[in-house]
Amino acid sequence: MKMYDIIYRKREGEKLTKDDLEYFVKGYSDGTIADYQASAFLMACFIKGLDSEETKHLTVAMTHSGDVIDLSGIDGIIVDKHSTGGVSDSTTLVVAPLITACGLKLAKMSGRGLGHTGGTLDKLESIPNLSVKQSMDEFINQVNNIGLSVMGQTMKLVPADKKMYSLRDVTATVDSIPLIASSIMSKKLASGADIIILDVKTGNGAFMKSVEQAKKLARTMVDIGKLAGKKTVALVTDMNQPLGQSVGNSMEVMEAIEILKGERDGDLKTVAFEIAENLLVLGDIVKTKDEAKVMLQNVIDDKSALKKFKQLIKAQGGNEDIVDNFDLFKKPKFVYEYKAKKSGYLKSINTEEVGKASCTLGAGRFKKEDEIDMSVGIWVNKRIGDKISVDETLFTIYSNDEEKTKSILSCLQDSIKISDKKPKPTTLIYDIIR
Amino acid sequence: MKMYDIIYRKREGEKLTKDDLEYFVKGYSDGTIADYQASAFLMACFIKGLDSEETKHLTVAMTHSGDVIDLSGIDGIIVDKHSTGGVSDSTTLVVAPLITACGLKLAKMSGRGLGHTGGTLDKLESIPNLSVKQSMDEFINQVNNIGLSVMGQTMKLVPADKKMYSLRDVTATVDSIPLIASSIMSKKLASGADIIILDVKTGNGAFMKSVEQAKKLARTMVDIGKLAGKKTVALVTDMNQPLGQSVGNSMEVMEAIEILKGERDGDLKTVAFEIAENLLVLGDIVKTKDEAKVMLQNVIDDKSALKKFKQLIKAQGGNEDIVDNFDLFKKPKFVYEYKAKKSGYLKSINTEEVGKASCTLGAGRFKKEDEIDMSVGIWVNKRIGDKISVDETLFTIYSNDEEKTKSILSCLQDSIKISDKKPKPTTLIYDIIR
Repeated sequence: MKMYDIIYRKREGEKLTKDDLEYFVKGYSDGTIADYQASAFLMACFIKGLDSEETKHLTVAMTHSGDVIDLSGIDGIIVDKHSTGGVSDSTTLVVAPLITACGLKLAKMSGRGLGHTGGTLDKLESIPNLSVKQSMDEFINQVNNIGLSVMGQTMKLVPADKKMYSLRDVTATVDSIPLIASSIMSKKLASGADIIILDVKTGNGAFMKSVEQAKKLARTMVDIGKLAGKKTVALVTDMNQPLGQSVGNSMEVMEAIEILKGERDGDLKTVAFEIAENLLVLGDIVKTKDEAKVMLQNVIDDKSALKKFKQLIKAQGGNEDIVDNFDLFKKPKFVYEYKAKKSGYLKSINTEEVGKASCTLGAGRFKKEDEIDMSVGIWVNKRIGDKISVDETLFTIYSNDEEKTKSILSCLQDSIKISDKKPKPTTLIYDIIR
Repeated sequence: MKMYDIIYRKREGEKLTKDDLEYFVKGYSDGTIADYQASAFLMACFIKGLDSEETKHLTVAMTHSGDVIDLSGIDGIIVDKHSTGGVSDSTTLVVAPLITACGLKLAKMSGRGLGHTGGTLDKLESIPNLSVKQSMDEFINQVNNIGLSVMGQTMKLVPADKKMYSLRDVTATVDSIPLIASSIMSKKLASGADIIILDVKTGNGAFMKSVEQAKKLARTMVDIGKLAGKKTVALVTDMNQPLGQSVGNSMEVMEAIEILKGERDGDLKTVAFEIAENLLVLGDIVKTKDEAKVMLQNVIDDKSALKKFKQLIKAQGGNEDIVDNFDLFKKPKFVYEYKAKKSGYLKSINTEEVGKASCTLGAGRFKKEDEIDMSVGIWVNKRIGDKISVDETLFTIYSNDEEKTKSILSCLQDSIKISDKKPKPTTLIYDIIR
């Protein structure tokens, strides 16, 4: 009767207690609460909402549904980073070497790509021989030795989230801010870092389409992190165009390396710096973001960030020579230039469609079982507001299959809008929520 | 994906189509839609509501989830009656002989009691040898021969309701007006009568505690009936005290017989007459309720209603002599007079508690499997507003078990409130909804 009573009270919009939410998470995890009660409950939560205290209690209960990683074996201040997912969003590849070159530690369990968004693990695996499989001891040793490690999830981290997410996915209860926040933050809390930085993407290539919703999600997650005793900051950043220029696995690694070499500027570098600056301040490496910016440019200029990236590759079994010789990456067979049919200014890009087009080429997965072609992808030559002449290249398509190339052309065509008037400048960073 | 989409749209408060609701009922009945999707959907319906058109489409879809009874083999106008359930609510036992003595036909599938409310089938089975099990042919033949039959449900009537009700019962989605209305009305529509009369009980002995909610449920059900092409009327009547004076199976049959003999007046007779009057007008037997009242008193005075009751008993294998000799009913061992401890006016009765007390004696079931003791029950000597002297009998307890008798005394004590001031007169019939 207790679960009935909990559903009843949430249905009536009442506030649930820590005990109620622990009871639900425990019972649903161990199977004593059935799917049909859980789904009715989640629908009531979806419609009636959960306040910040309820969301924290739910998150903490979920965190303790499985293993909680003990990083006490690592010396220093340990950072974790999470992006809600976007297109050409390789900030982790840039941020990780930058902040570890500045003295922070990064112990990151990362995810794979699904749908139109990419995943850090897939991108790293485009480096020949690099492995993201590690035991917990190897993981901790590597962070102690070189300051950073990025591995796939092997432990039973937050099994409650996995079960709840599968249920929400088929009962139209995914896009609820407290439920999304508890799903993300339970995994961050279970990962054991001292500092959590969140990058909440918003726009036509993100799950959060509106800036307001993204800010609300960011605020909810920061509140949970802080209530749980973690230093937590969230950025709300734009995903109305691919963040970098490359959409594809090895391509994104190369673009990140170019930034670390100091050879490339742009929005990807700007967001990566913003994240890194916040982390250096949170981690007490520097006092101000201005000092942080100087320090970060220094570790680029003196190549110590690039060196960190090489160390990461080597420690995880990869060929570090790729950093200086991109020819060591697997190469695609065909290169196709997609050209502008009219002149004007680039007004908008349907970012999700570009992500899906790259996925169609083989750079991503539509289903979990799909295999990834590391070499393919799309290079986005123009950014919103850029002037375009007829026959100028808009997209460069790297592919191993002519049929697939043809199949995405109309999709790319539809994804862009060109206008005669120069559009208003876009915003890159909407908010920083502390 | 279709069920996902239906859940999503109801979650957003959108109006569902006939096709959506048919898809849900069909899919949930045949098992292609899982419990967890159905419960999320029902919670969304509960919170966001269903309008009258959606409720009608849901009801009709439920009606066709199983057998629909074909009563075309019966000559004349066929009536069905439903009460939402109360204590000492034996109106069917009075109405059935009355209206059939006036020329209408009653073909009623009835239910059993559960919890504090009684059921017509149980009451009838207190008559020695009477059976409520009939084949469909026997049922139709009996209505054609003597004008009425009351049987238990044997066919697969509205299996969708059974499945949905079980799910709602454990997911806190029972007390929703559109869902209650569709549950009741789908069974009424499947039962094949021409005229449906509904008695919606309200008060501390009913499921609907507030008059407003009861009126809303009555309006919703009448709208469904009319939209489905049936003549439908609903009464909203009081259940703040037992309707008759007896609470127990054979006791209620005897009380009904006394009314049919013209030996007893009171609220039970008043409500039974109100129902019967409406039915005679709806069935075009008379033009006005005044004419109906005269006709009904006539069939009592000339004993033709009593004769109908005897015919019913005989046709269903029972001993019709009980009508004239109550000693043929099984007798309880103990009679206990529960007396007033103070004088004053009877201010209120917790009707549900009295129903439960009778249930504890053995007159009802707390669980479906419980066996019923036909002979036990409680006689309620006083009605709200009656003057009470110290040591006057308030309840007469008929029991076969001294322990059980003792166990209900404090409950009966708590169920009544006696005040010094005479309370305001109560309302018996709140509304008649057409």
